[in-house]
Amino acid sequence: MTVQRHLDKELRQVNEKLLLMAGLAEAMIHKAIKSLLERDESLFEQVNTDEKKVNLLEIEIDDICHKLLALKQPMATDLRFITSAMRIDTELERISDLAINITEGVARLIKQPQLKPYIDIPRLADLVQKMVRDSLDSFIKLNVNLARSVLTRDDQIDDLCDQIFRELLTFMISDPSTIPRALQLVLVSRHLERIGDHSTNIAENVIYLVQGKDIRHHIEENGTRRR
Amino acid sequence: MTVQRHLDKELRQVNEKLLLMAGLAEAMIHKAIKSLLERDESLFEQVNTDEKKVNLLEIEIDDICHKLLALKQPMATDLRFITSAMRIDTELERISDLAINITEGVARLIKQPQLKPYIDIPRLADLVQKMVRDSLDSFIKLNVNLARSVLTRDDQIDDLCDQIFRELLTFMISDPSTIPRALQLVLVSRHLERIGDHSTNIAENVIYLVQGKDIRHHIEENGTRRR
Repeated sequence: MTVQRHLDKELRQVNEKLLLMAGLAEAMIHKAIKSLLERDESLFEQVNTDEKKVNLLEIEIDDICHKLLALKQPMATDLRFITSAMRIDTELERISDLAINITEGVARLIKQPQLKPYIDIPRLADLVQKMVRDSLDSFIKLNVNLARSVLTRDDQIDDLCDQIFRELLTFMISDPSTIPRALQLVLVSRHLERIGDHSTNIAENVIYLVQGKDIRHHIEENGTRRR
Repeated sequence: MTVQRHLDKELRQVNEKLLLMAGLAEAMIHKAIKSLLERDESLFEQVNTDEKKVNLLEIEIDDICHKLLALKQPMATDLRFITSAMRIDTELERISDLAINITEGVARLIKQPQLKPYIDIPRLADLVQKMVRDSLDSFIKLNVNLARSVLTRDDQIDDLCDQIFRELLTFMISDPSTIPRALQLVLVSRHLERIGDHSTNIAENVIYLVQGKDIRHHIEENGTRRR
């Protein structure tokens, strides 16, 4: 896959800004979960600051892409690159929103005694952070195999989420005083699960971009149904 | 706002397909909630069939838009229209995914006795269905006031969701046997809330399209912070 020479500079700029966005989004997830584990609300402010940067980057990337579309009449491959970039920046922005949602849950959780040692939630967070990083890397490197590997991790995420859900359900049923905290933890795990979903959206876009094949609603070769 | 004459036909086609998508998405929400209220799982199949139609429409719209961008060199306003349409079809597709998620919760709920008379959840569903319809209407008619009215409904949705959450929490705490059902209802209400969020994303795109002003991350005039 080659790009039109005269667009090189602008497309590199888009790549750099997307990398920045993904790095910030990843850091936001990390800090949000760290604030839960260390019961440290001082991290919220950093997460909020990062979110503002992510929002600005989304607008900047969209502006560059609109200008390219309007002024440079990009050809087939560049065109698909540009429309993909405009989709991917939205996914990254939604991921950063979800990190904010997590801090909102954490703010409630750390006002109360810790319900249980956190093992599965940080594991889930690590997995989805890696999905964010790898999905964006697969875009930058146009690496379809890496993109496919992101898609296959979806099941692992779902299983881990179900496990977290069942464990918290047991807590709630055996001791109703745990219900508000357990519910918040269920919601935190759902936010993480959705971050995984956004990463698979990015990976699907990469496959579309490279192969010109829209797999978003098709049956994958391994039989996995992608919605 | 005018469109380039030679794109009229294609842009009308995009509009028609978006309208179809929005109609299907609305119907899916309606049927998903109807299956809860009437404990009727025969509706699931219809919702699944609708989802497949929505997925196909998304691909068709993206194809038309890509072809327009590649072959017709659309000017400023048309260009923004086309990139907006490509964002909006993604939002509608996500809404249809959420309707599927709701039926998955309903499938579990209707296997057990009904926890309580459902009043707030159908109300919430009606509100978000109207948000879907109005956000798409605001796009078709390029009606900024209608788009703004969608944005203002977000707070109402959040309040109703909080109320549902608190009521279900009371159920869970006073009778732990209600926990699994109450949890499913919490998740159903969260899915509806997210459908509202996707509608506000559509409305924000309309304002951007018409005013050329990106309000996605700015403070609105009434002081409402939009994330």
